[in-house]
Amino acid sequence: MTDKAGLEGVVAARTHLSLVDGERGLLVYRGYLAGELVRSRTFEEVAHLLWHGALPSHQQLEKTRLYLAEHRSLPVTVRRVLEGLDAEHDMMSVLRTAVSACRPSQEWPPTVEDAMMFTAMLPTVIAYRWALQSGRAPIEPDPELSHVANYLYMLTGKRPDPAIARALEAYMVITMEHGLNASTFAARVVTSTQSDMASALCAALGAMKGPLHGGAPLEVMVMLEQIGATEHAEPWLRRELEAGRRLMGFGHRVYKTRDPRAVALRSVVESLRTGDPWFDLAVQVEDLAIRLLEEFKPGRHLYTNVEYWAAAILGTVGIPKMLYTATFSASRCVGWTAHILEQAENNRLIRPQSVYIGPMPS
Amino acid sequence: MTDKAGLEGVVAARTHLSLVDGERGLLVYRGYLAGELVRSRTFEEVAHLLWHGALPSHQQLEKTRLYLAEHRSLPVTVRRVLEGLDAEHDMMSVLRTAVSACRPSQEWPPTVEDAMMFTAMLPTVIAYRWALQSGRAPIEPDPELSHVANYLYMLTGKRPDPAIARALEAYMVITMEHGLNASTFAARVVTSTQSDMASALCAALGAMKGPLHGGAPLEVMVMLEQIGATEHAEPWLRRELEAGRRLMGFGHRVYKTRDPRAVALRSVVESLRTGDPWFDLAVQVEDLAIRLLEEFKPGRHLYTNVEYWAAAILGTVGIPKMLYTATFSASRCVGWTAHILEQAENNRLIRPQSVYIGPMPS
Repeated sequence: MTDKAGLEGVVAARTHLSLVDGERGLLVYRGYLAGELVRSRTFEEVAHLLWHGALPSHQQLEKTRLYLAEHRSLPVTVRRVLEGLDAEHDMMSVLRTAVSACRPSQEWPPTVEDAMMFTAMLPTVIAYRWALQSGRAPIEPDPELSHVANYLYMLTGKRPDPAIARALEAYMVITMEHGLNASTFAARVVTSTQSDMASALCAALGAMKGPLHGGAPLEVMVMLEQIGATEHAEPWLRRELEAGRRLMGFGHRVYKTRDPRAVALRSVVESLRTGDPWFDLAVQVEDLAIRLLEEFKPGRHLYTNVEYWAAAILGTVGIPKMLYTATFSASRCVGWTAHILEQAENNRLIRPQSVYIGPMPS
Repeated sequence: MTDKAGLEGVVAARTHLSLVDGERGLLVYRGYLAGELVRSRTFEEVAHLLWHGALPSHQQLEKTRLYLAEHRSLPVTVRRVLEGLDAEHDMMSVLRTAVSACRPSQEWPPTVEDAMMFTAMLPTVIAYRWALQSGRAPIEPDPELSHVANYLYMLTGKRPDPAIARALEAYMVITMEHGLNASTFAARVVTSTQSDMASALCAALGAMKGPLHGGAPLEVMVMLEQIGATEHAEPWLRRELEAGRRLMGFGHRVYKTRDPRAVALRSVVESLRTGDPWFDLAVQVEDLAIRLLEEFKPGRHLYTNVEYWAAAILGTVGIPKMLYTATFSASRCVGWTAHILEQAENNRLIRPQSVYIGPMPS
C-alpha cells in the first residue's frame, strides 16, 4: 500500500499528451517539442494537435479555426448569469460559474466539440466580465480574427499589432499543457465518474484558483516594476539576495535545468523585436539574475521559470494584472479538455483510499 | 513508483472523519458507529460531530442549529443566477452553479462557518429550483423546523409528519460521510491548492453528477415499483435471477458482508412503524432476495446495500425521483466540507504524476 499525502511519485495516468522531463528540461506535446511549436505554430494548430494527436492538414485547420470562431459568442444563459453576479466575484469564480451555467451536454463520452466550445468561450467570458467591471459595453468577438488576436481585441477594443498578438500567442501555446498538475488531475478525477465536461472544467478552474497552483507572474511583475530600469537592476538584485530574499521567477519544482518554456518565450520575444523597453529590461534582468544567483547560491543552478516570461509578456501585451490567472486558464483549457477526452476514452473510476486515524467505538 | 489508473489501494489521505471497514461491515464516524448515530442523533448533532470531532453540548448544538437555520435563505445573487438558468439544466448542474455563484470567501483556510453556510443552503437551492420547474412559487425556509423537516417542508409546502421526517433524517445521517470516494477526493485535490470551499464543493458536486458515483437508488425504486405487491415478489425475483439479471440494491464493492448503512436504515424504518405499505414491501423483498441470492449464487454472500434502503426511504417520504442524487449531495455536503476542513488544516498539494506514452520528437 502506497501512502503519500501529496501522491508524489504516484502515477495516476498514462498520457499521450505531454512529457515534462525536469532533468533534461524537455516539454513535449504529442511528439513535438513545445518550444518548436511555439516558434512555428498558431494557437489553433497546437490545440488541434493536443485534441486529435496530429497537426492539422490545411482543411482540418480551417474546420477547427471556424468551429472555434463560431463558438466565441456567449450563450444567452451565460450572459444572464454573468450579469447576475456580484462585483465581489473574482475572475476565477466568474469563469467557473460561467462554465457551470452552460447548457449541459447529456452525452458520454465528452466530445472534441465540447472541448472546442469551452475553449472558444473562455476568452469571451473574461472580456465580457472585464468590460462589465470596467463600466464599458462588452465588445462582441470578431470571427475574422485569430483566437488570440480576438481575445486582445475584446479586451482592448483595438485590433492588436501582429507582433503583440504573436507574443501572447506564444504564451498561450506554451502554457496549454503540462502533465498532471493539480487542476488537470482534478478534471480527470471528476471525468472518471462519467460526469460531463463542464463538471470536470469547474473542478480544474477551482483548483487553478488556489494560490499554490495558479502561478505567480504577478510577483515577477511587481519585481520588474520595482527595478524599473536596466541601470538599477544589479544593485536591486544584490540587495535582495544579500537580504536572503527569494527572486521571483527563478527556480522550478520540476525543472532542474532551464525551464524550456522560459527559453521558448524569450526566443519568441527576441525575434519579434517589438522594441518594447519592458522586454529589454526583462532580458537584462534575466541574464544578470542568473549570474548573481550562481554567485550567491553556487551549485543550485537556479534558472528563469515560465512565470518570469509570462510576466514580461502579459505585461507588455497589456493584459490587466487581475486577468493573469484567468488568461492562463484560457490557454490551459486546451490541455484540460484534451485530458478529459483521454480519460473518458479509456476510463476507470479514480478512487484512492483513506486511512482512518480517529478513535474507535468503545 | 506506483502506477494504477484508478489509484486502487493508494492511500491519499489520513482522516479522522470515518472508517469504512468492508470486511467487518463497519462504518465509523469520528469514533462512533454510524448506525448508532442514526438511531439516536439528529442531522445537526452528527454534522457537528463530523465538523468538530465531538458530539455537541446542549449549548453548542443550539449554536450549530441556529447558524444552519439562519443560513437557509438564498443570497440574492444565487436567486438571480437560479432564475437565469435554462429549463434544460439538470439538478446537479443547478446545485454546482448555485454553489459557484456564492460570494467567494477570501479566507484561507476555509472555516466551519463556510461549511455550515453551504450545508444550510443546498436544500433550499434544490427546493427553489424544483418549485420553479414545477411552476410553483418557491416556499421560504422555516427557521423553526429542523434541517431535515424544513427540507421536506420546502419541497411539499406541508410541515411533515415526524415519522416521515425522521426516516429522511436517518437517510441523510447515514449518507453524510463515507471515506475517500471520488467526489470527496476531488474536493480534497482542489482544496490542496489552497483554493476556496466553493471551488472544492463544485468539484465534489461535479463528480457526484457522474453515473459511476451518484448511486442508483432510482433503479431500486423501479424494481420495487415493478414488483408492486408482496405476493408478486417471489416469482418476480426468481424470473430475474433465472434470466441472469442483476438485482438492484444488492452487493457492494467495499462491503463484503452486510452494508451497515442498510442495516441501520432498515432498523430505523421498522421502529417508526409508519404503516406505509411501501416499507412493508421493501422489508419483505429484502428478506426474500437475500434468501434467493444465496440459492442462485451460493457463497457470494450478496446483501442489501445502502441504495436499496435509500430507495425505500426516499420513495416513501415523497422525494421526487429527479432529486435523489441532489438529496444525497445535500447530506454528503457535511462529509465533503469536513474533509475540506481537514485537508486545509494539514495541507499538502496533491499532485500525482503521469507517464508519457506518446511519441518522442525526432
